[in-house]
Amino acid sequence: MTDSNIQLISTVSEDSKLVLSLQDVEVPQPGADEVVIRIEAAPLNPSDLGVMFGVADMSTATQTGTEHSPSITANVPAKVMPSLKARMGKATPVGNEGAGTVIAAGSSPAAQALMGKTVAVIGGGTFRQFLRANVQSCLVLKEGTTAKEGASSFVNPLTALAMVETMRAEGHKAIIHAAAASNLGQMLNRICIADGVDLINIVRKPEQETLLRDMGAKYVVNSSSESFIADLTAAIVETGATIAFDPIGGGQLTSDILNCMEAAAALNMKEYSVYGSDTFKQVYIYGALNRGPITLNRNFGFAWAVNGFLLFNMLGKLGPETAMKMRKRVADEITTTFASHYTHEVSLAEALKLQSVAAYSKQATGEKYLITPQK
Amino acid sequence: MTDSNIQLISTVSEDSKLVLSLQDVEVPQPGADEVVIRIEAAPLNPSDLGVMFGVADMSTATQTGTEHSPSITANVPAKVMPSLKARMGKATPVGNEGAGTVIAAGSSPAAQALMGKTVAVIGGGTFRQFLRANVQSCLVLKEGTTAKEGASSFVNPLTALAMVETMRAEGHKAIIHAAAASNLGQMLNRICIADGVDLINIVRKPEQETLLRDMGAKYVVNSSSESFIADLTAAIVETGATIAFDPIGGGQLTSDILNCMEAAAALNMKEYSVYGSDTFKQVYIYGALNRGPITLNRNFGFAWAVNGFLLFNMLGKLGPETAMKMRKRVADEITTTFASHYTHEVSLAEALKLQSVAAYSKQATGEKYLITPQK
Repeated sequence: MTDSNIQLISTVSEDSKLVLSLQDVEVPQPGADEVVIRIEAAPLNPSDLGVMFGVADMSTATQTGTEHSPSITANVPAKVMPSLKARMGKATPVGNEGAGTVIAAGSSPAAQALMGKTVAVIGGGTFRQFLRANVQSCLVLKEGTTAKEGASSFVNPLTALAMVETMRAEGHKAIIHAAAASNLGQMLNRICIADGVDLINIVRKPEQETLLRDMGAKYVVNSSSESFIADLTAAIVETGATIAFDPIGGGQLTSDILNCMEAAAALNMKEYSVYGSDTFKQVYIYGALNRGPITLNRNFGFAWAVNGFLLFNMLGKLGPETAMKMRKRVADEITTTFASHYTHEVSLAEALKLQSVAAYSKQATGEKYLITPQK
Repeated sequence: MTDSNIQLISTVSEDSKLVLSLQDVEVPQPGADEVVIRIEAAPLNPSDLGVMFGVADMSTATQTGTEHSPSITANVPAKVMPSLKARMGKATPVGNEGAGTVIAAGSSPAAQALMGKTVAVIGGGTFRQFLRANVQSCLVLKEGTTAKEGASSFVNPLTALAMVETMRAEGHKAIIHAAAASNLGQMLNRICIADGVDLINIVRKPEQETLLRDMGAKYVVNSSSESFIADLTAAIVETGATIAFDPIGGGQLTSDILNCMEAAAALNMKEYSVYGSDTFKQVYIYGALNRGPITLNRNFGFAWAVNGFLLFNMLGKLGPETAMKMRKRVADEITTTFASHYTHEVSLAEALKLQSVAAYSKQATGEKYLITPQK
């Protein structure tokens, strides 16, 4: 066992600087219900970017530190500083999930059972070499599954499953998904095909249309097309979709979706109502790919809701039984339904090179980074 | 009994014209469970304006008809026409509520019991002289209550009560109300004082602040003030309000409310989270005083919802028992808690004079029109 444990941290200082750097900490000892995992792979999710430098003005970022231990320094805008009181001066670990091998286990039977196993783990700052975690945060991967295959076992798979479960729990019968060519979107497409749920995929590029159609998607509409509104409305008429999930937020897409749902509902209205249709229309915004204002051009009556959607809150709403079922399905289907694809692998140090940051902060659909902390 | 029954109707024709006019129809005969009410007073609510001419471009309105039976003609924009298929060529009656005397009753005991009584009534087009209504749509007013006092027994009183009941049902502990100096706002203020619920009133003018404070309001903030954001946040910190009701919609007020709720919640956060606080923040938009885009400047995390709010939908959600309790309270307190004030009384013909329309369509807070169809 090694005595070096490099982790990636994000720190905001009183003088309005954000510093992203590596830190060598002690390899932890597990408590009774805990294990220590050698993290071998951890995906760079959009939510991680938020923790890393969401609060800073990255146009001011400069490369600091050394070749061996690079760091990045950027300015935090004055208006953001008051909201950061709780993290001021504290090293915030980064990384929402990952996978690796259990190298130490606490005394409890549940912890002991994980010794030597390849597990996926959620939370705690996975962009590090050795992570201590409660057994509840671990998901044992099936024999033969690699850490790289299991690295994205929580955020995307559970979010995609939570969307389908939310659709069911709230009485809708088909789903609209925006930015649908993403890793998450591809998973959702596979789940919906397997479960016989109609899914309308909204993408922005012709090649993304092709990608999803080649994966068996029946409904794919392109928001860059001139016929987008008509295409989306037609797909809603055909499927009856009244719930949508949008990771973009800023701009008019949420509004367009609600207006198309209302136009579809209006076709079935026998009597005109100044209040619009009584078909309830729901959009969940689960990301902030566009941090600009959300603009709602209200032509969709009064039976509607736009909600923020956060996996952890939704799991609470769906209940522990559904959550357990979801985790089991992920472990069973991690190399099929829930397979992730990475276009780049970087070490912890490489992740802190300005040119890497510039590349992965684009969050281009289809590009995905994997951090390999042991490299 | 008379044989004239003038009613106000709104008609959209194939050639994109909206015509508001008076029509003389037969005095109806009641069915077994119905009564006929001589309507003596009916309020002009914002929702009625929507039915009357919400779909037209009123800058093109001209006075047509005769001195005795005036009408108004206006153009309907081409882009609105497709949504009007269901009302094309049909005379749509106007008027959501009113009150008057039951002059004929059907054979059922429930109908007979209303004979001669002064009742308030919901639905059916109350801007007319004689209305047939199901007994379920009627609320018997207490002995001594006049039709004018009871004219607004449904829309405003039940909406105000539904806000308080929704707050309770959804687990919030204090309310924010925008455009709070309105008749509805004054009712809500009286209900909250009576029930011991903290209410933050948002107004736009100093005289509205004074009005509400003179009525015992504890929290009044002025959205035109430079310290609005700070004032609203301070009031939220003090009351813990996490639910708001906004009749405006267009603009940034909904966004400001959510951001102030989040700023208040952030004061209690022990750990910084990129997802914002886990305090759930709810805004219901129950009107369209501003029909422009709703702009959400998202700095309020992921635990939030913005919903349309429509009385009839909410009554369904709250259940029949709560709805019955609400109606009884309205009848008991119609001259106190639920008292309405009218600044103008107009006959059906006067309501169709262009100068009246220009005045009441301003929907100025504190100005309220009452239609007296028997005048």
